[in-house]
Amino acid sequence: MRRPGRHFLQIPGPSPVPDAVLAATARQVIDHRSPEFAELGLSVLSKLGPVFQTTADVVIYPSSGTGAWEAALCNTLSPGDRIITYETGHFAALWSRLAERIGLRPETVGENWRGGVDPQAIEDRLRRDAAREIKAVCVVHNETSTGSTTVLREVREAMDAARHPALLMVDSISGLASADLRMDEWGIDVVVAGSQKGLMLPPGLSFNAVGQRALEASKTAGVARSYWDWGEMIGMNRSGYFPYTPATNLLYGLDAALDRLLAEGLEQVFARHERMARATRRAVQAWGLENLCASPRHFSPVLTTVLMPEGHSADAFRRTVLDAFDMSLGSGLSKVADRVFRIGHLGDVNELTLVGALAGCEMGFALAGIPHQKGGVEAAMRHLSETAAADA
Amino acid sequence: MRRPGRHFLQIPGPSPVPDAVLAATARQVIDHRSPEFAELGLSVLSKLGPVFQTTADVVIYPSSGTGAWEAALCNTLSPGDRIITYETGHFAALWSRLAERIGLRPETVGENWRGGVDPQAIEDRLRRDAAREIKAVCVVHNETSTGSTTVLREVREAMDAARHPALLMVDSISGLASADLRMDEWGIDVVVAGSQKGLMLPPGLSFNAVGQRALEASKTAGVARSYWDWGEMIGMNRSGYFPYTPATNLLYGLDAALDRLLAEGLEQVFARHERMARATRRAVQAWGLENLCASPRHFSPVLTTVLMPEGHSADAFRRTVLDAFDMSLGSGLSKVADRVFRIGHLGDVNELTLVGALAGCEMGFALAGIPHQKGGVEAAMRHLSETAAADA
Amino acid sequence: MRRPGRHFLQIPGPSPVPDAVLAATARQVIDHRSPEFAELGLSVLSKLGPVFQTTADVVIYPSSGTGAWEAALCNTLSPGDRIITYETGHFAALWSRLAERIGLRPETVGENWRGGVDPQAIEDRLRRDAAREIKAVCVVHNETSTGSTTVLREVREAMDAARHPALLMVDSISGLASADLRMDEWGIDVVVAGSQKGLMLPPGLSFNAVGQRALEASKTAGVARSYWDWGEMIGMNRSGYFPYTPATNLLYGLDAALDRLLAEGLEQVFARHERMARATRRAVQAWGLENLCASPRHFSPVLTTVLMPEGHSADAFRRTVLDAFDMSLGSGLSKVADRVFRIGHLGDVNELTLVGALAGCEMGFALAGIPHQKGGVEAAMRHLSETAAADA
Amino acid sequence: MRRPGRHFLQIPGPSPVPDAVLAATARQVIDHRSPEFAELGLSVLSKLGPVFQTTADVVIYPSSGTGAWEAALCNTLSPGDRIITYETGHFAALWSRLAERIGLRPETVGENWRGGVDPQAIEDRLRRDAAREIKAVCVVHNETSTGSTTVLREVREAMDAARHPALLMVDSISGLASADLRMDEWGIDVVVAGSQKGLMLPPGLSFNAVGQRALEASKTAGVARSYWDWGEMIGMNRSGYFPYTPATNLLYGLDAALDRLLAEGLEQVFARHERMARATRRAVQAWGLENLCASPRHFSPVLTTVLMPEGHSADAFRRTVLDAFDMSLGSGLSKVADRVFRIGHLGDVNELTLVGALAGCEMGFALAGIPHQKGGVEAAMRHLSETAAADA
Repeated sequence: MRRPGRHFLQIPGPSPVPDAVLAATARQVIDHRSPEFAELGLSVLSKLGPVFQTTADVVIYPSSGTGAWEAALCNTLSPGDRIITYETGHFAALWSRLAERIGLRPETVGENWRGGVDPQAIEDRLRRDAAREIKAVCVVHNETSTGSTTVLREVREAMDAARHPALLMVDSISGLASADLRMDEWGIDVVVAGSQKGLMLPPGLSFNAVGQRALEASKTAGVARSYWDWGEMIGMNRSGYFPYTPATNLLYGLDAALDRLLAEGLEQVFARHERMARATRRAVQAWGLENLCASPRHFSPVLTTVLMPEGHSADAFRRTVLDAFDMSLGSGLSKVADRVFRIGHLGDVNELTLVGALAGCEMGFALAGIPHQKGGVEAAMRHLSETAAADA
Repeated sequence: MRRPGRHFLQIPGPSPVPDAVLAATARQVIDHRSPEFAELGLSVLSKLGPVFQTTADVVIYPSSGTGAWEAALCNTLSPGDRIITYETGHFAALWSRLAERIGLRPETVGENWRGGVDPQAIEDRLRRDAAREIKAVCVVHNETSTGSTTVLREVREAMDAARHPALLMVDSISGLASADLRMDEWGIDVVVAGSQKGLMLPPGLSFNAVGQRALEASKTAGVARSYWDWGEMIGMNRSGYFPYTPATNLLYGLDAALDRLLAEGLEQVFARHERMARATRRAVQAWGLENLCASPRHFSPVLTTVLMPEGHSADAFRRTVLDAFDMSLGSGLSKVADRVFRIGHLGDVNELTLVGALAGCEMGFALAGIPHQKGGVEAAMRHLSETAAADA
Repeated sequence: MRRPGRHFLQIPGPSPVPDAVLAATARQVIDHRSPEFAELGLSVLSKLGPVFQTTADVVIYPSSGTGAWEAALCNTLSPGDRIITYETGHFAALWSRLAERIGLRPETVGENWRGGVDPQAIEDRLRRDAAREIKAVCVVHNETSTGSTTVLREVREAMDAARHPALLMVDSISGLASADLRMDEWGIDVVVAGSQKGLMLPPGLSFNAVGQRALEASKTAGVARSYWDWGEMIGMNRSGYFPYTPATNLLYGLDAALDRLLAEGLEQVFARHERMARATRRAVQAWGLENLCASPRHFSPVLTTVLMPEGHSADAFRRTVLDAFDMSLGSGLSKVADRVFRIGHLGDVNELTLVGALAGCEMGFALAGIPHQKGGVEAAMRHLSETAAADA
Repeated sequence: MRRPGRHFLQIPGPSPVPDAVLAATARQVIDHRSPEFAELGLSVLSKLGPVFQTTADVVIYPSSGTGAWEAALCNTLSPGDRIITYETGHFAALWSRLAERIGLRPETVGENWRGGVDPQAIEDRLRRDAAREIKAVCVVHNETSTGSTTVLREVREAMDAARHPALLMVDSISGLASADLRMDEWGIDVVVAGSQKGLMLPPGLSFNAVGQRALEASKTAGVARSYWDWGEMIGMNRSGYFPYTPATNLLYGLDAALDRLLAEGLEQVFARHERMARATRRAVQAWGLENLCASPRHFSPVLTTVLMPEGHSADAFRRTVLDAFDMSLGSGLSKVADRVFRIGHLGDVNELTLVGALAGCEMGFALAGIPHQKGGVEAAMRHLSETAAADA
């Protein structure tokens, strides 16, 4: 028996799924080789491009985002290939570790858990690669473990400055449809994404948006692969079908979710996330607490990660909040385990839910005996009401 | 296309329906004369008594609460019968008007839109009724238009003091399962209720809990009736069936909702409502605004009605809140139209949702230019966190 | 735990609800006084007229069809008013009994449980009513207990031939949206209907389509009423609202169901029902069993009622079918209790479901030891495949 | 707009999903790192073993069955490893092709699209493998493209007879929970399965049941892998969690579906499938058509594949059936494309639905001008009613 009222799911993904999207996923399954299915397939495929801001093909996998990480690498790179990464946090590190496990040679050119990728580090390393051994630059757009968003345009410019032909591969699992991502304009070769964040779906689908250069690479390179192989997928997608049984019901939901996003308009979606993020940061500041992201230009529109005062357990605090107020907050991962908690403000979230979430934090501080100043909720409300006029 | 995030439905009913209850209502309909249906019928009927705190029969109508008002009267009273009422607000007045329309002679013995029924007025009038012409005392338990809750025990005591045999009929449409209601202990003859408030269901079902004296009365008295007739209903209910096609899918939901209520425990349900109400009143006080209910012992656990500062339109304010923050607040009705707004805090509502709702009000004041003091949300949070310890 | 596979709900209503309609009913409830609600209200009200084939107002009650029976009578007739009815079966008799209970004087001018209304009987009685004491003629369009459909046009003609001003009131609870019903063309003054038959909704809503003459009558006549009163209802409906809390979630479903009906087209809906009915009758004939309806021009498109061979219990047979094949069939009511069973083929039913249902009967005969000839299913299939060509 | 009535989804998977399972998948997503999630995880993991009839670990992937094929191979086998397969149809061939694509050396030791694996062929090949180069025997339990079910016990016996240490890996994607599968008793090392067949779920989950020897092998062997790696998965599963975001909502459904299966009892589930299959074969025989599976001991309980009479297009026939009767049948794949159609009778299917489906075929033959004898439906009904007595 769940507690009275709605659970507040304020982790940085999975994000709350709109009722209408959940209802769409609960339609009876259909024959994945029927004409009706082809309509569904073509519908979702045609709407995905605009969300990635690309004309490239977008491949849909029945898998988690981790699978799509693997897919991006194994379609384009060959065993022993060098890639460079930048450790913006736990997920950047995990992707790098995954690359290693499937036989690539990743090299981390820098590390910053309190900000975005330093493009200079990329540029420097690429310039030193006279032999053009580096085949890809792999960076995380929005680092879900820290709340920092990399300025991808700068990464592209760094690569251009180095005149290096490496592919630019971007994990935007928690960025897509929340933070601006212009695949074509920014010259990104592969974007990796997942369903359970800005797309407002349950987990279970992941994506590779595949640029022309990546597709070319996939024809001559790649590690042994079958499930993840782009070729067959893109071929069959032309007619709306998939080479193996797709996760039909999540596609129903995807179709509904894409309709919502496109009806709202991407720009408005990004602005809404930004507004929620600002309100949250105002609260953190008012509480006298520190944002893990120390670089304002990398503040994330998706989540905010809060450093606990020295000597206080973030996990104990999260447990208190869960017990007392039925809210889930994100935990600190690996290097920052128990040191931070994360507030997700992405996807299908609005002003009053956000204030409720921030109130859960502020009341939780009181209950858990965390040193803080009151007024965080009020500061957030001030921002939201000041910026509301234009909405109304 | 709905706005992003969840709508805040903070009217004093219909209240938000828990997802699991909605899902229950969406099960395929079954044969209402099948053995499977009888199990459902017996299940809901057996769980209703405890919620009304009675061993009496509870009749379920496919109708709104208005229908159950009519049912209570037309089963027990004959054309021209005198009844007395007390105008605690719009709904008490409506019930009285309905009585008149179906041929009864209602008399209002007092009026107070800012508090509960005055038991003395009842007692006085009954004492004067030497001829025992008055057949029923009809009062509203929780007046949804004002946010006042009558102390029913006092009404009973008043009737006893007057040694008057009139029936005590209580509208607890918005009280049941939110405010304590002890039908048997308090000697209530008929309780009228509805599905869309504390029972956390969509609207469409209503109830008459029928005490022994009322049932006796129904055998000799009553206005012309068929749909509302208790006799056939109670007879068929013995075996779990209904005399006409019941609203099967709402009964599915009712079964699920009753399970939730009984699992939580009625005492806990009432305490939870009381806590939400107190937090709300702290907010109203902090804003420097006035509660329409001026009598603290009649403060409602279900809703709080806020008087707008002179010269400000409550309806314009509610529109601002709806537009800017996607929250529905209750409007002022008849005598207090445009003068008050109502905040529902009943049913499936928890702490963070309530704070969100109060924040919507406080931010709405700012947007709409309503004179107020800040700090309402903070005051509510203080109450909620101070009283949370025991919960966690 | 339900049995594997889908239950076959083959009673003459409630009929199976399409998944999409069930899903619509499971949307979160909204404020019934909000602008969003008004849109919903206006939407359903505007689509109802075409289904009743009328330009008249259609009133929607949160109630069963029984309530709408009462509504039709109590809005137009005064205590002691005479009405005439024709007993085509159990439901015609029940409506008459209801009329009596609410103070009217119904007179049954004929009885035929094996066919439709005899218009001559109506005409004869009306002609004898020189004093114009008869205020209404109340007939059932499709008699759900027998499977006979009255030819309403003939009833109208009979009334016209008698030049009698009585109102023509029609119960089309199980007829609407399954059997052709032209309210305006056929001069019907009130049509009574329900949600759980051809409208493919769960039970819980009922309807009065109110012609101009009936509306006029309601202004001067009528028994004491409040819940059922047309005046307030029609007034508020103009703006999309209702005078008391409507059954919002069933209205969501109604909106979806009406969209389906209007998209398919009423003519096609009627033709589809007719085709199912013919296939069913072919099966009954092949089994060597008798249709309770003995008059081919009154065969119902909605259900077929089968007479059991002498000495065999229809109810025992139905139990066998329910136990062995998880199918619900309709029981015989009152005069034909245990003598007949009823096969519903209305609403959201297609060819293969119908064949499955008929197979359940035919296999049930074998299991229950009912004398019959095989080949009923085959006969139905022959009809369905012969008439399928045009569809494909 | 869908056609009236329910679509008949009679392909051999995805199979129709029970309404309650669909509803379970539509619950709001939760934090996959919360205590509540761990309960869900442990619940499903504890119920899976009994369905595989094993005490081994069962790994759940967010992926299609194709992914689970790849997972089974890449966890246990190293690049260049030899495996042997037996081509019972399209899916056996696809699995072999997949093995090749990921760097293994599959060898097909026999081919029979009209029956199960010939164990002698396996034994002979293994006996010749003196060097023990063959690392695995990979067979399909129930071949979805042909409707043949291999007798796995014989394959095990063949391997034992050859005293060969190769792993036995079985694709039971369409067999699990429909055809008896005794992983432990039959000494199967890895079972590959999917959600959308006997488990009655939407597609999107797949499974590897991992025996002790396979687990040992995975520690020293395997191709480059990350997503599919068993080690981390099994480790985290101990506490009910997953190493990457699981497909939470499908797990909700899985929990509900497993409850249904275990409540019914596996033996009863298998018997039910067998009964449906027999009824279907009676129909095919009566039509005078040929079952693609020519070996009665390999007849599938899951689906029946029907050979079209020479000169008639199976796909044109399927289109006719889809257009005229809204039923999806399975198409012929690769070698038997357009030559056969497949009738699925697996999962949540009952007697009357099956008869409806067979009627759709029989009526479809008539419409499409396919030479056949009538009486198939009748033959199926005879079998179902003869075997129904025990059920009732």
